[in-house]
Amino acid sequence: MRNPIVTLLTDFGTKDYFVASMKGVILNINPRCCLIDISHDVFPQDIREGAFILANAFSYFPKGTIHLAVVDPGVGSERKPILIETKNYFFLGPDNGLLTLATKQDEVRRVIKLTNKKYFLPYISSTFHGRDIFSPVAGYLSLGLRPETFGEEIKDWVKLDYKEPNIKGDKLFGEIIHIDHFGNLITNINRERFIYFTKSYNFNIKIKGKKVSGIKSGYWEGEKGEIIALFGSCGMLELSIKNESAQNKLKVKIGDPIIVERDIL
Amino acid sequence: MRNPIVTLLTDFGTKDYFVASMKGVILNINPRCCLIDISHDVFPQDIREGAFILANAFSYFPKGTIHLAVVDPGVGSERKPILIETKNYFFLGPDNGLLTLATKQDEVRRVIKLTNKKYFLPYISSTFHGRDIFSPVAGYLSLGLRPETFGEEIKDWVKLDYKEPNIKGDKLFGEIIHIDHFGNLITNINRERFIYFTKSYNFNIKIKGKKVSGIKSGYWEGEKGEIIALFGSCGMLELSIKNESAQNKLKVKIGDPIIVERDIL
Amino acid sequence: MRNPIVTLLTDFGTKDYFVASMKGVILNINPRCCLIDISHDVFPQDIREGAFILANAFSYFPKGTIHLAVVDPGVGSERKPILIETKNYFFLGPDNGLLTLATKQDEVRRVIKLTNKKYFLPYISSTFHGRDIFSPVAGYLSLGLRPETFGEEIKDWVKLDYKEPNIKGDKLFGEIIHIDHFGNLITNINRERFIYFTKSYNFNIKIKGKKVSGIKSGYWEGEKGEIIALFGSCGMLELSIKNESAQNKLKVKIGDPIIVERDIL
Repeated sequence: MRNPIVTLLTDFGTKDYFVASMKGVILNINPRCCLIDISHDVFPQDIREGAFILANAFSYFPKGTIHLAVVDPGVGSERKPILIETKNYFFLGPDNGLLTLATKQDEVRRVIKLTNKKYFLPYISSTFHGRDIFSPVAGYLSLGLRPETFGEEIKDWVKLDYKEPNIKGDKLFGEIIHIDHFGNLITNINRERFIYFTKSYNFNIKIKGKKVSGIKSGYWEGEKGEIIALFGSCGMLELSIKNESAQNKLKVKIGDPIIVERDIL
Repeated sequence: MRNPIVTLLTDFGTKDYFVASMKGVILNINPRCCLIDISHDVFPQDIREGAFILANAFSYFPKGTIHLAVVDPGVGSERKPILIETKNYFFLGPDNGLLTLATKQDEVRRVIKLTNKKYFLPYISSTFHGRDIFSPVAGYLSLGLRPETFGEEIKDWVKLDYKEPNIKGDKLFGEIIHIDHFGNLITNINRERFIYFTKSYNFNIKIKGKKVSGIKSGYWEGEKGEIIALFGSCGMLELSIKNESAQNKLKVKIGDPIIVERDIL
Repeated sequence: MRNPIVTLLTDFGTKDYFVASMKGVILNINPRCCLIDISHDVFPQDIREGAFILANAFSYFPKGTIHLAVVDPGVGSERKPILIETKNYFFLGPDNGLLTLATKQDEVRRVIKLTNKKYFLPYISSTFHGRDIFSPVAGYLSLGLRPETFGEEIKDWVKLDYKEPNIKGDKLFGEIIHIDHFGNLITNINRERFIYFTKSYNFNIKIKGKKVSGIKSGYWEGEKGEIIALFGSCGMLELSIKNESAQNKLKVKIGDPIIVERDIL
């Protein structure tokens, strides 16, 4: 039998004892777990960024993988700790939307509110449920315990969504939803929507008053300093500058607008 | 039989070949090892920070875990490479205090000075004992070799301690001993000491000329920009600002004072 | 049978979904793989830095380890994806020289151009061959498939080399090839060459107009603020300042010159 896989995504950084103590708790319950970091460098308390990263990583893992995610500004408050079972995976984390960009891609089967303290650490701090609640539950879940063991099913949970791009006449209004390690700008306009909108028209893309024409196929295309547009590895329209950070060069941030214009006549 | 666990804590960062070559050496001796990073982002040569992180992570791991820690400004000098066996764990690292905030929590059984070159790499650099001494010893230890195999017992080793907080009249003088990834300020005042000092008196906490009243239960409490006090996940009094870095906002550093005042009358 | 080891080296950083999706793909094909990070903090698109780090880490791993490396500014262009089989290891990555500082140390047996799409992901993006080509091939290779399964042998591939130091009269001209996490400056002058050049002469080392005399044996030597020279853990001449970053103090960068002068008479 293969070892169970537990992935971890947090905004805890990699300097402190936070992530390691979570891993210790899991291994203490099930030493056979294979622990894989998705990211611990989510911008502090940025639920949307965490949700985006999780949504683009989870589906590459084997069926049955347990995805544990903690970006949790409301830790210790009324927000619920939950377990979402989907067609192929288990997701553990706070009920603040963090898990839901991922889970809506994989048929949610049920959502359990974690209430059974038998599977928590004996002493539960009010500041670190990642270690005290989510990790022990991940450990027991990896041993094969059924989801219903950990609490009761709920029908209502927080759902997050990308802001949808918006068509007005011959303009498609989108925005930047993520900026990657290289400074590439990922937008909320996916390939299907882009193609449906531009059809066989000419088009150009506007960002910060600059115009980009055409779609390139890879980052290596384009001249030095030229802004190029392409569809990145997550299927979204992306703006990039060869060997440079488009973020630094254009001085943009998450939420900044991007406009696709069809060229009529 | 479960695979042995070796954790690693260093100030080596994650860019260079340092940590990976240590892991290679361990796996080359015992490919069944499960390797877990505690942290490699300890501030360069900051033994106290390393000791603090290790002390707050080690006890969550399964009995028998080998904790390998290298923050080692004296590498290649007279300082001794040691193995500390405690009730539940093994600790490997330089004899400079790094291991001792952890080991004093878990009954030290014996301390071995590593001298048996049979279990070192054949060529020992003067700059990288993490790879050349500590990692091969961790590998052999994980195979079940007894501690005495690696050298002779010593009775004297460097011990580190937190500076104790200090009571003068109705004031308790503490200091900041750690600043976490979120910019929260961890002090050397633990919950027991705080409660013993404040009893049923009113109190306020002073930092950088600012006053904080009361103890909150979680980071989510308090208004925007308000400094709050709470007991964090390591059991110490902590100062925090909601959704902000208290470190940046208050411009404080490790060692800066914090005063708890009892309100007599 | 021990689990196969796959190492990963990239310039992808640790924030995004990039590295995790690669690991997911590998584990989906072979859940028994032991995945070890070498580094993901290679400076973006810096093939030389990636090659240096890989070359100093790979040989510590067990025979048979698969080293997967992706620093790939030409992803999606004509550059070939390759597999290099050496005496003891397998290397996967782009044909841009990244693998070759390592492979020339371990007897290249053959180089395969990856062409068999049966072992790629079904949909291959033009921007992320790490996930779509190299990771699935690593997964299948770890299952024991023979290198020739993945494509055809080629006789010509991109080789990278350090710029050789240069002797003119009584001066040896070298340069900085790497700056490590601590700000130590690693040069392209190895121990053998240095000893051959200096013989029994006195010598001094010049960097940025400053003179360094003698070779120290460890970082702990030297006074506060003093530049010292030593041979580091990768066998190269290195310049360092005790408890400080030589990089910040001397304001130097990769490629900056360093001169060793023999002191005649």
